[in-house]
Amino acid sequence: MESTAAYVADQAARVKTASLRLSSLPTAVKDAALTAMADALIAQSASLIAANQKDLDSGIERGLDAAMLDRLTLNPERIEQMANGLHEIVQLPDPVGEISDMKSRPGGFMVGRMRVPIGVIGIIYESRPNVTADAAGLCIKSGNAVLLKGGSEAIHSNTAIARVLDEAGQQAGLPPHCLALLETTEREAVMQMLQQIDSIDLIIPRGGKGLIRMVSEHSRIPVIKHDDGICHVYVDQAADLEMAIELTLDAKTQRPGVCNALETLLIHKQVATELLPRLGKRLAAAGVTVHASPDALPHLPEAVPATDKDWDTEWLRLEMSIRVVDSYADALDHIQQHGSQHTEVIVTNDHTLAMRFLREVDAASVQVNASPRLHDGAVFGLGAEIGISTARLHARGAMGLVELTSQKFVVFGDGALRA
Amino acid sequence: MESTAAYVADQAARVKTASLRLSSLPTAVKDAALTAMADALIAQSASLIAANQKDLDSGIERGLDAAMLDRLTLNPERIEQMANGLHEIVQLPDPVGEISDMKSRPGGFMVGRMRVPIGVIGIIYESRPNVTADAAGLCIKSGNAVLLKGGSEAIHSNTAIARVLDEAGQQAGLPPHCLALLETTEREAVMQMLQQIDSIDLIIPRGGKGLIRMVSEHSRIPVIKHDDGICHVYVDQAADLEMAIELTLDAKTQRPGVCNALETLLIHKQVATELLPRLGKRLAAAGVTVHASPDALPHLPEAVPATDKDWDTEWLRLEMSIRVVDSYADALDHIQQHGSQHTEVIVTNDHTLAMRFLREVDAASVQVNASPRLHDGAVFGLGAEIGISTARLHARGAMGLVELTSQKFVVFGDGALRA
Repeated sequence: MESTAAYVADQAARVKTASLRLSSLPTAVKDAALTAMADALIAQSASLIAANQKDLDSGIERGLDAAMLDRLTLNPERIEQMANGLHEIVQLPDPVGEISDMKSRPGGFMVGRMRVPIGVIGIIYESRPNVTADAAGLCIKSGNAVLLKGGSEAIHSNTAIARVLDEAGQQAGLPPHCLALLETTEREAVMQMLQQIDSIDLIIPRGGKGLIRMVSEHSRIPVIKHDDGICHVYVDQAADLEMAIELTLDAKTQRPGVCNALETLLIHKQVATELLPRLGKRLAAAGVTVHASPDALPHLPEAVPATDKDWDTEWLRLEMSIRVVDSYADALDHIQQHGSQHTEVIVTNDHTLAMRFLREVDAASVQVNASPRLHDGAVFGLGAEIGISTARLHARGAMGLVELTSQKFVVFGDGALRA
Repeated sequence: MESTAAYVADQAARVKTASLRLSSLPTAVKDAALTAMADALIAQSASLIAANQKDLDSGIERGLDAAMLDRLTLNPERIEQMANGLHEIVQLPDPVGEISDMKSRPGGFMVGRMRVPIGVIGIIYESRPNVTADAAGLCIKSGNAVLLKGGSEAIHSNTAIARVLDEAGQQAGLPPHCLALLETTEREAVMQMLQQIDSIDLIIPRGGKGLIRMVSEHSRIPVIKHDDGICHVYVDQAADLEMAIELTLDAKTQRPGVCNALETLLIHKQVATELLPRLGKRLAAAGVTVHASPDALPHLPEAVPATDKDWDTEWLRLEMSIRVVDSYADALDHIQQHGSQHTEVIVTNDHTLAMRFLREVDAASVQVNASPRLHDGAVFGLGAEIGISTARLHARGAMGLVELTSQKFVVFGDGALRA
């Protein structure tokens, strides 16, 4: 058995080689391959479920909790969802080859920009085996080869899915090794992967804070993080209070366990007395535990007093913080200090203030009178998303196919010279 | 005297604080500051030249060669060039705040993208003191605060320039420390700078290979490299040979010491016999030494035989490599193997082949019948450039003001919810 380091380097090099051919394949070939992959997942459901059972058995043995076992589980319905995900990607326009901004220049030539694949993308993820198919589909449609490293608890499931996809893709015309999964549970494999600067162009980690931090600290390859969201809604004094209530409920309760859910509500003191009792009842009815600042507490009979660390907490469940602020400036300060620059919302009918908020708040998505839960690739119209980037460079916020590409200049001359 | 580590961390934190205010300053304030900076450089020419003299004196003492001393020298003309550079940046449109792609979505809201500054940019550079003003001007116009670290040989010049700029900027309304220079010659300062992940958002190294490699290896902050250019011109069998000759001369001799100059000429064997003698005479007349492949040599009486390592050499002077290839495919192979993905050119009148070259060649700029020397921010119409990126993420090729910004999503709703 070769060493982990040699195994990872070899796999990365093979994927790199595949990427050189994949990058200029016509859309029709990529789409046919994705369709074949979807069909193969359905056709081989039984073997995928058998592989998944091994992971579930050892998960039970290792004492994984019910939520983790649920995330790990594959069943016919979930396999169909993976296949449908691939079919949806087929329907999306291929960004590769698109030329934009083509302009005539005084030197007697034209210059524009052409979208091209990034090259090889390394995806490091935890738990849910469906990521294997979703991430591979988006990478391949955008002309990128992909090296996957899933969590050890899903090793049999991920291996089975990746092999089915790779085989089906090859039969439909993809070069071998366009997608490869590191079939190892060695933690060392991740560290080795992060050193492959000659083969991998971009690392996207998807998982908990521990994984993100480890990858950011050790990677020699550029990383686009998908980090936590401490998202705020600020209810201004000029807010429509009915709108503020509905928006808060949507933002907190529609799906509390995700990064674009609401964590802290800020309320201007002028409207706190009128808003809080009504809002408090609705939140209580929805089962939301509220941690409230001292001046909000009297209006919220069921709330508990907020502690300092609550303002920096990503609850990810039916629990939230509420603070009354003296002014827009205080709300802005709070967001700057405690926000994670993910998704920030103002509820107001004051146009000037709304435009100030847009300019002054630094986050991946800044929104007026719109739920933070809307911040999503599909909802924003990018098609399927690989995640929501909390990085500032290359891609910020929801990342779709276009964000998985780079650009190059293209120049058409007729003997144009510099001299 | 505080330690280098503490000094660098403190300077970086001050610049970070300044960036929070700078990021939302109106264009008029930034333009007024840049104008004041330009005026101050002229007004304080004498003190800049005096500071520069100290660097020149110690450079002579340390035995710098004539070319390096020339690069280091400030005189009234070069100071005027710096000032003019700042005036030109004032004339460029401010990318910050521009909203694009605003679209209506089925959920009853609008979503678009707004250009925002990246935050704090760290520039690490060598030799030429004018970079201090050029880089600072581009960063500030695009709303980014900037931490500069110049070469030790220019420490007095850089310090004097940075202080003049900072003072003039502040008087014109910029927050203090929008631009700061690390006033130290400790090599340790660069290493410390590369660790300031909480204060610096992007590192741009400008200098020789050694600097670029060191920065890439040690930076914990994202880096956009400006690496070397091993640029090719491929003369296809369907080329206009007169055009090929003029383009080769321009590409090699118009300014040989820069990254977008020609290093290797590839010639299809069908046209080699006709092209080489004529081209050889012109190159010899221009003083260019040619390293030629065996089948090119007989047609080039003044050439020397090429060695294997010539194909990987960035000559940067009146010297070049010439190789005869059997086919387009061989040219492509050569470029893939030896190119640095900077600027690649085909000379051909075959439309289908030209379009293939555009698709199949992976470089920051891919060009048909146009000199590689055209690959430049000003020539391409981006305005002044901070450099030519050889990275694949965020910015590739010539980088202007827009490439010094990031984007955020902006959403306008009227109570839009996810549910």
